[in-house]
Amino acid sequence: MSVPVCVLGLGLIGGSLLRAASAAGRTAYGYNRSGDAAAAASADGFEASADLGGVLARARADGALIVIAVPMPAVNSVLKAVAEHAPQCPLTDVVSVKEPVAALARKHGLDARYVGGHPMAGTAESGWAAGDAELFRNARWVVSVDSGRDPVVWKHVVRLALDCGSVVVPAESGEHDEAAARISHLPHLFAETLALAGARGGDLTLALAAGSFRDGTRVAGTAPALVDAMCEANADALRRVLDEALQTLTAARKALAGDSTAELTAAGFDAHQRYLRRGEKSAITAVSPGAPGWLEELRAAGRRGEALLTLPEERS
Amino acid sequence: MSVPVCVLGLGLIGGSLLRAASAAGRTAYGYNRSGDAAAAASADGFEASADLGGVLARARADGALIVIAVPMPAVNSVLKAVAEHAPQCPLTDVVSVKEPVAALARKHGLDARYVGGHPMAGTAESGWAAGDAELFRNARWVVSVDSGRDPVVWKHVVRLALDCGSVVVPAESGEHDEAAARISHLPHLFAETLALAGARGGDLTLALAAGSFRDGTRVAGTAPALVDAMCEANADALRRVLDEALQTLTAARKALAGDSTAELTAAGFDAHQRYLRRGEKSAITAVSPGAPGWLEELRAAGRRGEALLTLPEERS
Repeated sequence: MSVPVCVLGLGLIGGSLLRAASAAGRTAYGYNRSGDAAAAASADGFEASADLGGVLARARADGALIVIAVPMPAVNSVLKAVAEHAPQCPLTDVVSVKEPVAALARKHGLDARYVGGHPMAGTAESGWAAGDAELFRNARWVVSVDSGRDPVVWKHVVRLALDCGSVVVPAESGEHDEAAARISHLPHLFAETLALAGARGGDLTLALAAGSFRDGTRVAGTAPALVDAMCEANADALRRVLDEALQTLTAARKALAGDSTAELTAAGFDAHQRYLRRGEKSAITAVSPGAPGWLEELRAAGRRGEALLTLPEERS
Repeated sequence: MSVPVCVLGLGLIGGSLLRAASAAGRTAYGYNRSGDAAAAASADGFEASADLGGVLARARADGALIVIAVPMPAVNSVLKAVAEHAPQCPLTDVVSVKEPVAALARKHGLDARYVGGHPMAGTAESGWAAGDAELFRNARWVVSVDSGRDPVVWKHVVRLALDCGSVVVPAESGEHDEAAARISHLPHLFAETLALAGARGGDLTLALAAGSFRDGTRVAGTAPALVDAMCEANADALRRVLDEALQTLTAARKALAGDSTAELTAAGFDAHQRYLRRGEKSAITAVSPGAPGWLEELRAAGRRGEALLTLPEERS
């Protein structure tokens, strides 16, 4: 079950993954296009190289689980190399958007061995040096349950997520992308807009800012290039969610013409209470990867907010 | 200089003020319409009564600084009582909006003795029991520098703010209200809208929510009635600021049609950096209340983000 792990891309997420998989006792090695990052990883005691063909030849030889951990704009060229050097290896990724990566996997003929993933973890930092073996501890790691996923590859991906200390949330790629737009990408656009609204008020306004402004703008401190990469890769879903939010705010503006905010605040408070209660969802226990209907059952469980804490065969 | 303090309204803010003024060694007493709250304050060792006329008669007798600490909808009736029982007392308030309170003070003939105030402090809780003598420690307390303010009353209000541990930011009522719309009321509407956007995604979406959603929605946990009271009292300014924010988001939506968020993220990041640097502003030192141009000088200092840390006559 515990195949070697081959991490392609050693930035914050890939670098943390190489560390976490190693800490879990897995054989793990990595590639990074920049020789500096590969050298830094080697200096820290990890097996890392800037030779993509060589790393993939090793993955092919030892049947490693290949993890795509490069930014979205680099995914196409890396998948092309995977298709050339190691097309039979189980394949996953940790990119923040799932539909576009799945489409590229299909394009390169890698669909049958690909099961997408996304650990919901990160910091505003980037690069190998920012990595942390504990980054994924107690995080929610989305694993794809799109139609046609291979149950063996699926278990490889789930095992990796669990080994890194995460719990696994099963979701279709499209559902993941819409969720990410709602709980991450829209909040980033709102934080940027609030920061602008404050600064446009000048120094007096900024001097009066307290907790609601501090928290509402916090993620506007993220490097713009990182926010752009996330949001632009998920532009389809983000457009839909932003349109919906614009409708909400436009309705609030109309109500405010009559001096009322009651409709928005009542609905927003209820929604926030629902969010605060989300932790009460139960764990997924009755799933057998490969059995009839297994993907549909996992999809339904994910939609209920449930997560997988162990692999089924590990239970008594 | 240290006249008694008469607090009308013993909720979170008024109750904290009664405690803070007492802790600073000031003679302080209060009124609350609900006999329960007055009894609770008395049980905690403070002088509190549900007899408004009696409390105002005492304020008139001892020349107390009267502080209006009731919610905006109750301000009119309380000011009417002040005009009837204690029209010569120095008068201030701690209501979250300043233009509407100033207008009511004028209406009741109390303008000459009124200097508005607003401590930028609070929690999501409410009521006497939620009060805290330390609530105003290191907060920014806006004190009005509208034309025509009486320098003696102004110093009474500043002394109270400083006694409670705050620093004083001078601002015109209209400037305060626009600033509050930018750094408090708009953030509340955004938090409600984000909470709704998350909940509309269902349990899967809420299960995946991490730090950006948690912080961006935090103040949606505030009781809707409190948010409504704040926002609706400041509806004029909030409409203008919300229109501006809708323009920003609509422009972002247009850019996203071309798959780009770069313009918004660059501007939002710069605005957030300016906010983070706001603490570097200097203290106001050269002001003499009552001297020619004193209000204009204070307005200009407030617009530069400066604050008063002591009263001028207390310096060497």
